Amino acid sequence: MNELRRDYFLDRWVIIAVDRAKRPSDFVHAREPASGSQDCSFCPGQESKTPPSKASYFDGDHGPDEPGKPPQTGWTVRVIPNMYPAVRQEEVHIRRDMGMTASGVHEVVVESPGHDHHPQFMADDEIRRLFRVYRDRFAEIAGIPYVRYISVFRNYGKEAGASLAHPHSQIIALPIVPRDIDEQRGFDYGLVIEDEADSPRLILDSKHTVAIAPFASCFTYEAWVIPKRKCRNLTEMTDEERDDFALVTRDVLARLSKLLSDPPYNYAFVQSIDDDIHIHLRICPKLGVEAGFELNTGVHINSVTPENAAKSLREV
Amino acid sequence: MNELRRDYFLDRWVIIAVDRAKRPSDFVHAREPASGSQDCSFCPGQESKTPPSKASYFDGDHGPDEPGKPPQTGWTVRVIPNMYPAVRQEEVHIRRDMGMTASGVHEVVVESPGHDHHPQFMADDEIRRLFRVYRDRFAEIAGIPYVRYISVFRNYGKEAGASLAHPHSQIIALPIVPRDIDEQRGFDYGLVIEDEADSPRLILDSKHTVAIAPFASCFTYEAWVIPKRKCRNLTEMTDEERDDFALVTRDVLARLSKLLSDPPYNYAFVQSIDDDIHIHLRICPKLGVEAGFELNTGVHINSVTPENAAKSLREV
Repeated sequence: MNELRRDYFLDRWVIIAVDRAKRPSDFVHAREPASGSQDCSFCPGQESKTPPSKASYFDGDHGPDEPGKPPQTGWTVRVIPNMYPAVRQEEVHIRRDMGMTASGVHEVVVESPGHDHHPQFMADDEIRRLFRVYRDRFAEIAGIPYVRYISVFRNYGKEAGASLAHPHSQIIALPIVPRDIDEQRGFDYGLVIEDEADSPRLILDSKHTVAIAPFASCFTYEAWVIPKRKCRNLTEMTDEERDDFALVTRDVLARLSKLLSDPPYNYAFVQSIDDDIHIHLRICPKLGVEAGFELNTGVHINSVTPENAAKSLREV
Repeated sequence: MNELRRDYFLDRWVIIAVDRAKRPSDFVHAREPASGSQDCSFCPGQESKTPPSKASYFDGDHGPDEPGKPPQTGWTVRVIPNMYPAVRQEEVHIRRDMGMTASGVHEVVVESPGHDHHPQFMADDEIRRLFRVYRDRFAEIAGIPYVRYISVFRNYGKEAGASLAHPHSQIIALPIVPRDIDEQRGFDYGLVIEDEADSPRLILDSKHTVAIAPFASCFTYEAWVIPKRKCRNLTEMTDEERDDFALVTRDVLARLSKLLSDPPYNYAFVQSIDDDIHIHLRICPKLGVEAGFELNTGVHINSVTPENAAKSLREV
């Protein structure tokens, strides 16, 4: 039987409609091919094709490229300005009729020298380093006076909105707190962790972190990775907590990759500079398309129950 | 200069980032091919492949298929139950932990006997008839006691979520009013019509209807078709008003088709059974993918200004 489910806290509904998975399609479902590493501006040796790095990471050290000098090479992670930014670093100017300058920061985190070395394939030290870079960038950007929200997210595969194939995350900092984040203030994810710990929706449970298939998953095989101790953002977590958060995230991504033949996905952190929000990471495989019904109602249709999704992810 | 813009009424922001259109992509952008009419269950002569029609339309007449008799043929529009419904016609049962039965109605409106005869290509009488069918279905479904909202929408092209190629719309009736609709109560679209009538965002202006590129368009070439007189839904409009609404809609779709090489799109009606909502139709071409940033923040990035979009649509 199909179900209408409501999110733990938000006024957000989803239809769990298992039969929908069986419907036929007239269209071909080929995975979009990605190009190889030739001409890739993010690959090692191509550093001069991008603006100077804001931070290049080496084993035990990191720092920006220096103006007028050749870019640093031999990095493990490299943070650069987005060359086609959605927002720009400039003072906010309010304009008449409800507009303002799109002031902010738009960065690209090149996650690995390897052209195909995505987080789902990373070793422990690599994924921990990536989360440390996320933390460092958050800390630096949060110091810009007009920045109110920092979105740290990842698009994997063309279907999930990636335009370049080399492993990278993006950071967009905004001069507003988006409503989708603002309305999460005060939510007690401690209750969710407690409730779901012995539910069929638990995927993984480690010392500092749980991963669950949320009760009202909007997307098929959606997973949330939630640190057990309430922190507002990555900078408030201890190194041990953040390392555990990174490893559980990698494990969930690796399980999704194995279960669903390396599907396209998005992930994004829900966090806050100074509002009362419990940080967590939302991972959404991109197996379908949001269509007219979702556009109209904001209600998603999910053809796999979160209970079955969690079971498959536990057992794979 | 990039801009952050807020919707006329909603706490919904969009980034207008013109430079983003120039960014390179590693991925192939082939349009998904659709199959031909062989084996199409929606084509004339294939009526017995679907459940009996809830209403088959003929010139000047309409009625449902009768149980136990062969399905009617020779129709111009045919309304059938969705064979893979998201919601089902059954009493609502509230279940523990925030769930309920997904009670409702899920119908398919086969819009034309022609396998490729989509609304953007329809003659005046054909598009007017389609809007009359939308009206009739709304009127009938609104009478079901547990139905609180009726979503009438269309997905064109695989990229926009269509699974079958034959021209069709869908109707999903829900036992809840989704928040995205509920929060539009009381908005005065009369003000929007007045303001935009002499703005660079006007696309078309006819006796009873305007079409605009909204100030904070979430999607590239997004267009809203708004009846001038405030009505809550299609049943409250006069035949003349509804006919004009249909023609302006078809004209906008035809202009989009010409300007953008027949792009995939979604459209959906914002309307209400009995809440204070001003009916309008939202048309969104599907030229990009919603990715991690949109998922995280609800903020869309649009690479064409609504002013330029409207100008191109006026002049094409």
